[in-house]
Amino acid sequence: MKFNTIGIITKPQAEAARKTLQALFDFLKNNHCNIILDEQIPDTFNCCGFKKESRSELGKKCDLVIVVGGDGTILNAVRSLAHASVPLLGINVGRLGFLADISPDELEASLHEILNGSYHEEQRLLLEMQVTRDGKVIFEADAFNDVVVHIRDIARMMEFETKINNEFVNHQRADGIVVATPTGSTAYALSSGGPLLHATLEAITLVPVSPHTLSSRPLVVNADSEIDILVCSTKEGIAQVSCDGQLSYDVHVGDHIKIKRKQDKITLLHPKSHNYFEILRAKLHWSEHS
Amino acid sequence: MKFNTIGIITKPQAEAARKTLQALFDFLKNNHCNIILDEQIPDTFNCCGFKKESRSELGKKCDLVIVVGGDGTILNAVRSLAHASVPLLGINVGRLGFLADISPDELEASLHEILNGSYHEEQRLLLEMQVTRDGKVIFEADAFNDVVVHIRDIARMMEFETKINNEFVNHQRADGIVVATPTGSTAYALSSGGPLLHATLEAITLVPVSPHTLSSRPLVVNADSEIDILVCSTKEGIAQVSCDGQLSYDVHVGDHIKIKRKQDKITLLHPKSHNYFEILRAKLHWSEHS
Amino acid sequence: MKFNTIGIITKPQAEAARKTLQALFDFLKNNHCNIILDEQIPDTFNCCGFKKESRSELGKKCDLVIVVGGDGTILNAVRSLAHASVPLLGINVGRLGFLADISPDELEASLHEILNGSYHEEQRLLLEMQVTRDGKVIFEADAFNDVVVHIRDIARMMEFETKINNEFVNHQRADGIVVATPTGSTAYALSSGGPLLHATLEAITLVPVSPHTLSSRPLVVNADSEIDILVCSTKEGIAQVSCDGQLSYDVHVGDHIKIKRKQDKITLLHPKSHNYFEILRAKLHWSEHS
Amino acid sequence: MKFNTIGIITKPQAEAARKTLQALFDFLKNNHCNIILDEQIPDTFNCCGFKKESRSELGKKCDLVIVVGGDGTILNAVRSLAHASVPLLGINVGRLGFLADISPDELEASLHEILNGSYHEEQRLLLEMQVTRDGKVIFEADAFNDVVVHIRDIARMMEFETKINNEFVNHQRADGIVVATPTGSTAYALSSGGPLLHATLEAITLVPVSPHTLSSRPLVVNADSEIDILVCSTKEGIAQVSCDGQLSYDVHVGDHIKIKRKQDKITLLHPKSHNYFEILRAKLHWSEHS
Repeated sequence: MKFNTIGIITKPQAEAARKTLQALFDFLKNNHCNIILDEQIPDTFNCCGFKKESRSELGKKCDLVIVVGGDGTILNAVRSLAHASVPLLGINVGRLGFLADISPDELEASLHEILNGSYHEEQRLLLEMQVTRDGKVIFEADAFNDVVVHIRDIARMMEFETKINNEFVNHQRADGIVVATPTGSTAYALSSGGPLLHATLEAITLVPVSPHTLSSRPLVVNADSEIDILVCSTKEGIAQVSCDGQLSYDVHVGDHIKIKRKQDKITLLHPKSHNYFEILRAKLHWSEHS
Repeated sequence: MKFNTIGIITKPQAEAARKTLQALFDFLKNNHCNIILDEQIPDTFNCCGFKKESRSELGKKCDLVIVVGGDGTILNAVRSLAHASVPLLGINVGRLGFLADISPDELEASLHEILNGSYHEEQRLLLEMQVTRDGKVIFEADAFNDVVVHIRDIARMMEFETKINNEFVNHQRADGIVVATPTGSTAYALSSGGPLLHATLEAITLVPVSPHTLSSRPLVVNADSEIDILVCSTKEGIAQVSCDGQLSYDVHVGDHIKIKRKQDKITLLHPKSHNYFEILRAKLHWSEHS
Repeated sequence: MKFNTIGIITKPQAEAARKTLQALFDFLKNNHCNIILDEQIPDTFNCCGFKKESRSELGKKCDLVIVVGGDGTILNAVRSLAHASVPLLGINVGRLGFLADISPDELEASLHEILNGSYHEEQRLLLEMQVTRDGKVIFEADAFNDVVVHIRDIARMMEFETKINNEFVNHQRADGIVVATPTGSTAYALSSGGPLLHATLEAITLVPVSPHTLSSRPLVVNADSEIDILVCSTKEGIAQVSCDGQLSYDVHVGDHIKIKRKQDKITLLHPKSHNYFEILRAKLHWSEHS
Repeated sequence: MKFNTIGIITKPQAEAARKTLQALFDFLKNNHCNIILDEQIPDTFNCCGFKKESRSELGKKCDLVIVVGGDGTILNAVRSLAHASVPLLGINVGRLGFLADISPDELEASLHEILNGSYHEEQRLLLEMQVTRDGKVIFEADAFNDVVVHIRDIARMMEFETKINNEFVNHQRADGIVVATPTGSTAYALSSGGPLLHATLEAITLVPVSPHTLSSRPLVVNADSEIDILVCSTKEGIAQVSCDGQLSYDVHVGDHIKIKRKQDKITLLHPKSHNYFEILRAKLHWSEHS
């Protein structure tokens, strides 16, 4: 066995995951794996009395972490394991995700293959974000999909200035801006008109949201770029910054939102049959013709 | 003189308007016009002790209402005068507006012409919006630009269902939707990817904001259409409806936002030389080639 | 019976239509209709020796013309019958069309209903286009979907100037421009980023194709607008004008392409159950969520 | 002096370049540079009887090649010097280019600085393209901006299948597709809705032109990707492939257009003050606000 100690993360409330979890437990026990559960998993799910540990301990002790849930659950898991070098595997609970790409039906076959060392390994980049006010860091968080700076109040807009590697890019009036990894290029950045970046491209995309300047266009820059967004005006509204749509923070005029890649990448495992474009086609409905 | 009693509306705080207002007062007095000020104008602006009246009285007593300010001031004035049949004229205070298209420089020449009956007259449509909950109207307002239904919280999205004339159009997941008049087609609808509707077209446009369904497209329907947007889900966030970005109201799952044209149109006056496309070119920077 | 003399048009080569045609013939004979075939239908399709007439005679003698085929066949039929007041009905041959919205499966039920006078009637507008050179008309044609002016040679572009009702709109550098009816707003105009216009809206849309000016946007104007496109430059390439993608003509620098609505509208019949938005949803795949 | 032997390329017909050329000659002679002209420069431009050589010899003998002209002249020069390791410098003839970013006004100051070794150096990638038919290469060419596959006839469309590194991406119906370098991302790809790629990003973008599938989106992939476009159908029209809009070739159903990066990069020199985003802002008119 390539992987012996397996961590398991799932969304505590996810009733839909229960059946898949049980199948997973059975499979792993039959394969004599050592199982550690994320401590957030409620005891009602822990039928067999597995050991429970914090995310941080999971990162240290496991050879592999399996996440059962939707893309949101994986985003959350990735951010908490970014510092560790443990690879992740995503099992969806019924609906194909961009990240949770193993379906419950193929759970046993896929896991068998992967535990035996036959898999496709992918390194993906994460972002780290800091809000600075008067020169001091007042909030920081990681993002696997995107950092979004956005006016909260409807039908107001904000003004902001973007610098990349300390070079002035532009001053925009818009609802906001999305700074996305390739992983996040299929999420909110896409809804806002951004391009699809291949999952392993070393790049970051900046996509304006409802820009007032009609000639604004999505920009794709090197993953090593340091991005600085200065909040210039919020027109009586409140602006926020959000990471993966899961962690939010109010920002004020004069605040800088600084974004750069994390030193660590995350390792995702997929079955050998994994095909990025197949997932794109399925999720974006490319195959249907009118 | 074609117009004898002239109402004047301006944004109370608009210091920038003071000089233009004074020039306007002088001109109108020299032309023996009867002047009534909007009661919201502070006395510090009312050097000559003109009579002050409510918007509603302005609508009844005036032959013409002149608005000094930006497009926002005119939007506000139009909504409060929609019921009256008095025509409006917009004078900007330094920056060309889509609506405030007379510049202070040409104030005297333009007004001279217009007061003598030589002008271009334009009828524009307005929307009326009602929010209904459990079958009861709980909020209503008019809009000259647009009615926007939008999730307030950043990086969440809402689900809603749109019907037109009681026919189901679609179910969308998006940040929101803009329902705009032709006047509003150059405002938020445009930032969200909507088309430009000629100012006098008898049509309404529905423009999704950051839609999750990539095949969503702006839709243009007859001005007599009755639009019904049902809030289906707000994913733990708060959705709002907003008219012209100036009046907002929180909406809940199950609320219907019903939008249709107002019976009354508003009459805008422009100098004879007014040219809609010239304003589009100037405001949208169509003339510059790279 | 509401309709006694029925004209039939189909695409001569359409082998796929044969079975549907036969079912149609049988149904109409059983219902004692008088059948006249379009003279372009080959004799191999005319099993029963029906009378054949020119399109022009079909227009005069028939109470109803049924078109069996795809949207292309209907576009062709509509242009040739625009002058007549005969209504049209479209039966598709296996794939739902925007225009051919009766499927072979429901042919008998739908026709029964329609022939008995129970149907939904829709008036749609057409365009007429003239190319003038040195003040003389050198080409003219009608369009039901769109008039497209386009550079033919790949990776060149053209420059043109647009006027509406003799007012200058803009000077553009682009691959071309689509001027579309509401019917055509679901065709090439849509691929080029244009909005959807409800089928019965009294409007025309102008959509630039790959514009160099990034602030160019689709424009929607009143159906009574007279549009004039002046070819300014073609950069060593050849520009063409095309109606419904079916009739093309080379245009030169200095040529004017003049487009306005036809005086006549076309009448389309649909089953009572016809729903415009249902067809949009089906054809544009609006129902699928990722 | 850092550079002693300087090659000079300009567009033979470019009368506009004559004055700038003369200033350039004077400056280089005063600085004791050895000058070699591109053999395509007409003798009427060669006032001083400089030596003339082929592009291939320029590549071998020069320390630096200066191109006087517009972006088109530089595209042409880059393709012919891609094999050589000589750096290029672009001087525009009156209108700022994305590539020709030294204006005639600053010619002397900029050159002085650069010849003395103070400059900004940039490596940019090129593409190489092969058309294969029945397994044989029938056409090949390089591109610095883009390879475009496009239906030539107006208002027809083509169908094609895209593979990347031998993985099936999608089957599209569209007017065509642009495969662009970062350099080309500001050209035709941008008009077709593609993103801006920073000039030195190691990536290639694939942008569909007027796609029929509304969910088609621009894709950005690693620069090492091997792209294969198979022409599936051209609907009675003629499809072409074009490199930088300067070299075209008719392609047939069944042909493969294979595109990958060239092994060699091109080196562009800029003045120290060069700022990529400043050029973007100037060319795309980002600074103007409505």
